[in-house]
Amino acid sequence: MGKDFYGELQLGILGGGQLGRMLIQEAISYNINVHILDPDKNAPCRKLCDHFECGSLSDYDTVFNFGKDLDMITIEIEKVNVDALEALEDKGVIVYPQSRVIRLIQDKGLQKQFFKQNDIPTSAFQFISNRESLRNANLSLPYVQKLRKDGYDGKGVKMIHTEDDLLTAFEEPSIIEEIVKFQKEIAVIVARNDRGEVRTFPMVEMEFNPQANLVEFLISPSTYSFEIQQKAEELAKKIANDLQIVGLLAVEMFLTEEGDILVNELAPRPHNSGHQTIEGNFTSQFGQHLRAIFNLPLGNTDARSNAVMINLLGEEGYEGLAKYEGIEEILAMEGVYLHLYGKKYTKPFRKMGHVCIVNVDREIAISNARKVQEILKVIA
Amino acid sequence: MGKDFYGELQLGILGGGQLGRMLIQEAISYNINVHILDPDKNAPCRKLCDHFECGSLSDYDTVFNFGKDLDMITIEIEKVNVDALEALEDKGVIVYPQSRVIRLIQDKGLQKQFFKQNDIPTSAFQFISNRESLRNANLSLPYVQKLRKDGYDGKGVKMIHTEDDLLTAFEEPSIIEEIVKFQKEIAVIVARNDRGEVRTFPMVEMEFNPQANLVEFLISPSTYSFEIQQKAEELAKKIANDLQIVGLLAVEMFLTEEGDILVNELAPRPHNSGHQTIEGNFTSQFGQHLRAIFNLPLGNTDARSNAVMINLLGEEGYEGLAKYEGIEEILAMEGVYLHLYGKKYTKPFRKMGHVCIVNVDREIAISNARKVQEILKVIA
Repeated sequence: MGKDFYGELQLGILGGGQLGRMLIQEAISYNINVHILDPDKNAPCRKLCDHFECGSLSDYDTVFNFGKDLDMITIEIEKVNVDALEALEDKGVIVYPQSRVIRLIQDKGLQKQFFKQNDIPTSAFQFISNRESLRNANLSLPYVQKLRKDGYDGKGVKMIHTEDDLLTAFEEPSIIEEIVKFQKEIAVIVARNDRGEVRTFPMVEMEFNPQANLVEFLISPSTYSFEIQQKAEELAKKIANDLQIVGLLAVEMFLTEEGDILVNELAPRPHNSGHQTIEGNFTSQFGQHLRAIFNLPLGNTDARSNAVMINLLGEEGYEGLAKYEGIEEILAMEGVYLHLYGKKYTKPFRKMGHVCIVNVDREIAISNARKVQEILKVIA
Repeated sequence: MGKDFYGELQLGILGGGQLGRMLIQEAISYNINVHILDPDKNAPCRKLCDHFECGSLSDYDTVFNFGKDLDMITIEIEKVNVDALEALEDKGVIVYPQSRVIRLIQDKGLQKQFFKQNDIPTSAFQFISNRESLRNANLSLPYVQKLRKDGYDGKGVKMIHTEDDLLTAFEEPSIIEEIVKFQKEIAVIVARNDRGEVRTFPMVEMEFNPQANLVEFLISPSTYSFEIQQKAEELAKKIANDLQIVGLLAVEMFLTEEGDILVNELAPRPHNSGHQTIEGNFTSQFGQHLRAIFNLPLGNTDARSNAVMINLLGEEGYEGLAKYEGIEEILAMEGVYLHLYGKKYTKPFRKMGHVCIVNVDREIAISNARKVQEILKVIA
């Protein structure tokens, strides 16, 4: 980097949500000056950084001007103006992950094409330009339609079960994918630094909230066979190397009923499937991201114990100033770590925080997590 | 508290140094709004809080005005205006630790008297009003002279070996103490919340830098006999109960050559002898302090593994803008956690950061820590 850790290095983060917040918690230990750009004036990071700028992440000028005097830019969300990032790179600002990686991952169509070109196993898919062209799809019903851009946490995703569903399908450029019959959704987070060092976190198992289509329950490490875990981790490493990414890459995968692994989606940043690493592993995903982008040696990713992560989602039927029920009760349980995200307002399924539950016994960790899920509520 | 964790609670911290900084790192997970008062405009906390006020901690009006609209005040340094804290308590602001506890601990004479009144074993001592009265001391040479007020990290402490030393002894109100022949300096951090729950961290062993007289090397947990550890932990609990403190209390002790334990000094706040708890224990001392002052259930204090803490002190012979040597090398070692304090300028023996080294094998943790000590340097 040339710059040393005495408060000289200026790091910009595009996005000031919970991922940025947890990245700052870690960056404090490295004397990093953090600048945040976020469109929400109440963003979770607003009070925790050297400089907070309220502005659009998709506006070229806003992103360019935010970054032009900084040493390095990273992201906590993919939906950013990549042209501005490319211009910043040309100007000499370090952008990790690189703008070309973000550009590719922003577009689910390009992601799929990349998988195909690099022999990365993934479900069958087809590009769709508009609703009408679904009529001539090669895939047979049912299938999933995903907007090529701007989807996240289940938004931009539709299940097309019947001919009737075609009427309400997305009009915008999209892809359709065959529905994978999976036994488990799994994920591996991998980090790569500029000197080409690559290290994966142990594979985790996820359960999704069927209504909100976002991770609700995560168990680390997995107890699937060594072969399956190794296959998933090698796949994540291959993708990181194929992309030549610098930074973290979250690789979400399906473990099919036949025991095959298909890559679902990528995220080039800290990810919900890695929150349990804060207490569950020797290095957290946030620490690893900083090590990767500063080209420091990557940290030991081994699990320190079993860890279960549950997302704390806004309760259905409540919207407004957030209130938390059950905090005292869950903190009386051993091995329970609360992470609130500093969001003032709740709404149904909004990610308001997460809880990590650690235990030497996997089954106890799981049952304690189920208890926490029952007790802890965000209402208004 | 009455107030809930949605950003409503306003916590003031007197002092914005490294202890405040690590307390903020933890408070982020609890949605706490943090206000900092510190006389240094470059204080380590300045950019990490909701509101930073640059002002004197010993000035009545400054402290009172800082605290008067807040819900709760805590401290990260004892040298604060206690009269202002008492007035704030009268006004209904919660002050934890309580002003009467801070007042007692601020004065090494009152501390000693408190030990005596409560049958807490401590070294023999005598109150000294001025330099001249040392001539009639009941203790025989050599002994230690300590200023009653405002000493810290070895400042305000003098060894009186010979009659000649009496000429350069402190003139201010002080105590003299017999020199304890100890085999080890040990410490126990204890927490107490308002409902009277009391919990100790495991006893740790410390080594001091003989020149700077501050902790240089700390090993957790101790390998002394169960009886000794239990005695030290019971003593810490007794002191917390005798004081009826709410918050953390660090109890520094001597383990004498005969195997007795004598209490040396108290600190009613997070303390250097607890930094290793961040990675070494299930609950960190900072998390425990927050649990205690918010009257939440106290966390599990068990060690997760062996942990060695070394202070990163400004190298002798260097003064100015801090530079760090060896960061890359130490981060390549497994189980090494760097904590820089965000201090712009270094000077000899200034606490610039600390490093925690964890390992399942105590001897490996110790030898890795020795390596880190050799490699990592703060220069200018």
